[in-house]
Amino acid sequence: MNYGLILKTTGNVMILEAAAMLPSLLCCAIYGESAAPFLLPVVLLLAAGSALSRTKNHVDHFFSRDAFVCVCLIWFVLSFFGAFPFLLSGRFPSFIDCLFESISGFTTTGASILTEVESLPKSILFWRSFTHFIGGMGILVLANALLPSGGNRSQHLMRAEVPGPTSDKLVPKLSQSSKLLYLIYSGMTVTEAIALLLCGLDLFDALTLAFGTAGTGGFAATNASVGAYGSPAVEWVIGIFMLLFSINFTLHFLILTGKAKKVVKNEELHWYLLIFAGAMVIMTANTASYFDTLGDAIRSSFFNVATIISTTGYGITDTNLWPQLSKTVIVLLMAMGAMAGSTGGGMKCSRIVMLFKSVAQELKQIIHPNSVKIVRMDGKRVEDGTVTSVLRFFGAYVLITFFSTLIISVDGHDLETTFTAVLSAISNIGPGFGLVGATGNFAFFSGFSKCVLSLCMIAGRLEVFPVLIFFFPATWKKA
Amino acid sequence: MNYGLILKTTGNVMILEAAAMLPSLLCCAIYGESAAPFLLPVVLLLAAGSALSRTKNHVDHFFSRDAFVCVCLIWFVLSFFGAFPFLLSGRFPSFIDCLFESISGFTTTGASILTEVESLPKSILFWRSFTHFIGGMGILVLANALLPSGGNRSQHLMRAEVPGPTSDKLVPKLSQSSKLLYLIYSGMTVTEAIALLLCGLDLFDALTLAFGTAGTGGFAATNASVGAYGSPAVEWVIGIFMLLFSINFTLHFLILTGKAKKVVKNEELHWYLLIFAGAMVIMTANTASYFDTLGDAIRSSFFNVATIISTTGYGITDTNLWPQLSKTVIVLLMAMGAMAGSTGGGMKCSRIVMLFKSVAQELKQIIHPNSVKIVRMDGKRVEDGTVTSVLRFFGAYVLITFFSTLIISVDGHDLETTFTAVLSAISNIGPGFGLVGATGNFAFFSGFSKCVLSLCMIAGRLEVFPVLIFFFPATWKKA
Repeated sequence: MNYGLILKTTGNVMILEAAAMLPSLLCCAIYGESAAPFLLPVVLLLAAGSALSRTKNHVDHFFSRDAFVCVCLIWFVLSFFGAFPFLLSGRFPSFIDCLFESISGFTTTGASILTEVESLPKSILFWRSFTHFIGGMGILVLANALLPSGGNRSQHLMRAEVPGPTSDKLVPKLSQSSKLLYLIYSGMTVTEAIALLLCGLDLFDALTLAFGTAGTGGFAATNASVGAYGSPAVEWVIGIFMLLFSINFTLHFLILTGKAKKVVKNEELHWYLLIFAGAMVIMTANTASYFDTLGDAIRSSFFNVATIISTTGYGITDTNLWPQLSKTVIVLLMAMGAMAGSTGGGMKCSRIVMLFKSVAQELKQIIHPNSVKIVRMDGKRVEDGTVTSVLRFFGAYVLITFFSTLIISVDGHDLETTFTAVLSAISNIGPGFGLVGATGNFAFFSGFSKCVLSLCMIAGRLEVFPVLIFFFPATWKKA
Repeated sequence: MNYGLILKTTGNVMILEAAAMLPSLLCCAIYGESAAPFLLPVVLLLAAGSALSRTKNHVDHFFSRDAFVCVCLIWFVLSFFGAFPFLLSGRFPSFIDCLFESISGFTTTGASILTEVESLPKSILFWRSFTHFIGGMGILVLANALLPSGGNRSQHLMRAEVPGPTSDKLVPKLSQSSKLLYLIYSGMTVTEAIALLLCGLDLFDALTLAFGTAGTGGFAATNASVGAYGSPAVEWVIGIFMLLFSINFTLHFLILTGKAKKVVKNEELHWYLLIFAGAMVIMTANTASYFDTLGDAIRSSFFNVATIISTTGYGITDTNLWPQLSKTVIVLLMAMGAMAGSTGGGMKCSRIVMLFKSVAQELKQIIHPNSVKIVRMDGKRVEDGTVTSVLRFFGAYVLITFFSTLIISVDGHDLETTFTAVLSAISNIGPGFGLVGATGNFAFFSGFSKCVLSLCMIAGRLEVFPVLIFFFPATWKKA
């Protein structure tokens, strides 16, 4: 293990996190709130970060393993220090709660242990939403965009942080690629904020909502989430941007560089939009009687499908009260999640498509045992190793979900609450059903369950394997 | 496709099914009940069966594909004619209900649409339980044991009907192997029936309960299932036999031929017993306060773990009222199910073990990318193709469960009811939770949902791929 480089990278990221707290400090100044909750962690992060970033690196190699451990460690450290503003605000019941909220923020889950948010200081609410923005595209992608790159180590790190079964580079040079990603990401966020301003929201709400959409997070500065505004225009804007942020960023890049033809041919996009439309049709038909006009039903379905499939988790209605068919559609969308290479969570659309194709491959093999079968995406052969990884990812995802459900069951809440809380955590969504439904929160869980759910959130955000590698004994053995 | 041979085999099996109705006819004679419900199907089966069994076969080859289609077709036909006694008894609301009950019987699920069973004619109750006995070990295994064998076609058919990721033969000759399987199976069933007689049950109850245990089915001739007898001795006997019937029959064969050493070393058995014990410990600790003595709690846990892990589904308590931890344990055991090569359902213990090993393999590959990793069971290498099939099986199983849950959701029942009804059906268990809990039944589902659940039961009993092959368009295309 290349401990030197891991510590050095962690140090760099800590300095970045200190910098990420500056907008919240500005918020303190604007709203005349105490800066103390941010000053201490900024000082701590800068001191420890600078010390660590000077770590001498005596080893040359940096393998996948090192990258997985490094990314996992960084996410733990990031969440740990990210919890300090919450703790120092004095508004959270315990440190575990602060940690839960911080992890929920960075992993863009958006599950909260708060029963009420509107009375919180604006700077704390701002930080809460800003963690979504940082976690959405990834802190290592940011580090790679801003700091001098280190060749193949960056590639390993990016692969461990960016979601999806395969990783595309936008341009051959990786640091350039990271810069472009953040540029598109920030550009879209600003566009959304402007659109929300035009809908009549104030700057604070527009920004925090845009951060929550960008990272597909879901924290809002209002108790009733997006429903608080009662504005169809706001709902359409956020709905459309949730959909946009859940689409592979490579496709946004292609659009921006005038290669729309390639986008139109993208197979994962076809399936994604088909599933989106299918879910919308079912939901609209199933819930139409709950609304005054068909238009309202369509808007509600669009928003709700977008908020779940993108794994954002903003709410406008209490879906807990909906008929079971719509609720089951939501549960299935929760498990699948967004497109690979987006800021959304879940297993990703492309993996589910590959899973279907792999099962079909098994059937074809039974029908014609002597011919060689391959899985294709976008007309190109997917390597067998990638398909096997997808199958194992699916297995690991389901196993973790089921075992976490078992552990959380100790708390004694009903199956709907327990299972959807875990699925919501691992898929980085936020709300589930039952007690963790749109109007509920995660406050009532035991400290132990909150820790398990927090681990599920990080496992989900980093797509399972980095966290498994971190806790796998063989990782720490000398070769 | 070798249609000739498929029809011929179907004809043979129909004649066997007619023969399988003879004990029920005997029941009619003993209890002075009308024989009409059985005479018509017997005549129909014999007439159609004899005609089909004379089909001329002009094609020589018989591949996996043909076997999968043949097995699937035979199970449809078997269930169709098996529903006639129910229909002709006039005690079932509709033909779909009869078909559901018949499929539930043959697939050894034991889910019933009846709200009350004790008033039914004895001969109908006997047939209901006897379908478990036939479906448990498999009708094609029976055909292979009794009828002249046809070389590799029998092997293909056996592989498609006998559960498990790989198929062992007890002895090199397949028809001999089938005979031995049925000998052990019948011997154990008779032993259980005698044990139940010694516990004070009458012959009818002893036999029907033994059939239900043997096939790991779960139909009982009493409304309160095994709980009706209020006898600890009966509960221990049935509990122990449920465990025995859920163990790979190869191991029973080894014990009987004095090769106990091999049994002790069997890896799947280790895991299976470990999971069994672990579930028992959790359940006993979690429910102890519900019982007067620790002994009662242990007996209840033993029975309940055995009834679920073996996928039998007999009940002695209303587990719906239990704390969530025990209920979640039950849900996980429902999904896993019994050992491969037993009469139990579910995904099978060995597949879950291989799934875990395959995920660990992925982690090892990340840690040491250049070394070749293999999955071992019993110290021997498992072929990559088998492991991939297991992963795809897992994927298909989860996908079918989720999509069936989606379809059944149209009925509008809660998630717990809907999801556990589907899981119970595909894992061939019987009861679930919520409305389909230990004291509930499947009567309230719509006809459409009953059809979906019936398909799930057959898909589960035949381990998914035969049913998928049957409905896969490419199967029916000419090569």
